[in-house]
Amino acid sequence: MSCIFCKIIAGEAPAAILYRDEQVIAFRDIHPIASTHILIVPLRHISSVNELEEADAALVGHMALAAKQLAVQEGVAGRGYRLIMNTGPEGGQSVFHLHMHLIAGKSARSLLG
Amino acid sequence: MSCIFCKIIAGEAPAAILYRDEQVIAFRDIHPIASTHILIVPLRHISSVNELEEADAALVGHMALAAKQLAVQEGVAGRGYRLIMNTGPEGGQSVFHLHMHLIAGKSARSLLG
Repeated sequence: MSCIFCKIIAGEAPAAILYRDEQVIAFRDIHPIASTHILIVPLRHISSVNELEEADAALVGHMALAAKQLAVQEGVAGRGYRLIMNTGPEGGQSVFHLHMHLIAGKSARSLLG
Repeated sequence: MSCIFCKIIAGEAPAAILYRDEQVIAFRDIHPIASTHILIVPLRHISSVNELEEADAALVGHMALAAKQLAVQEGVAGRGYRLIMNTGPEGGQSVFHLHMHLIAGKSARSLLG
């Protein structure tokens, strides 16, 4: 098992875990680009958005719903936040296990206009 | 009806529509920030991620699946792309009807590192 996110899910690599349920896990990005920077990750290994099938729709939506709850917990739901899924080399994907970034707070405002 | 996206959905405002099914519509962003910049929008008016309920999970996932198909159509699936949902003032949301940005190609690489 070489996937770092699978190792975190299995408890074999450390992470600042904020949330876990039967479908997803959420932990803080180890290289945050804003004061709130959390990754929401499906427990099942899916490489990227390119590998998603229609049967995964509810799972992907559940990732967004978990992100929404985390935004409330972090106290950023009112001011605002961004949810981002990067795919492939030019999309900036660095770990090839599907994940959604929740980015908010200081510095997030200037990203992407 | 003052929502510009609801007007596009109703055929009362112009847009470069690329895709439509029973749940979502997709059209080119009128102010593109990259060579591919498409918005995927649910037909039903939902203001933002903050208003999503668990029952909307499949809809949100379907938006991502539609985006994946559009990335293939645009010829950017291999090189990579970003899917982004902005929420609230500091999140950069400008139209308060839920939408997902599909951004790829020239200039997308430098965004968000």
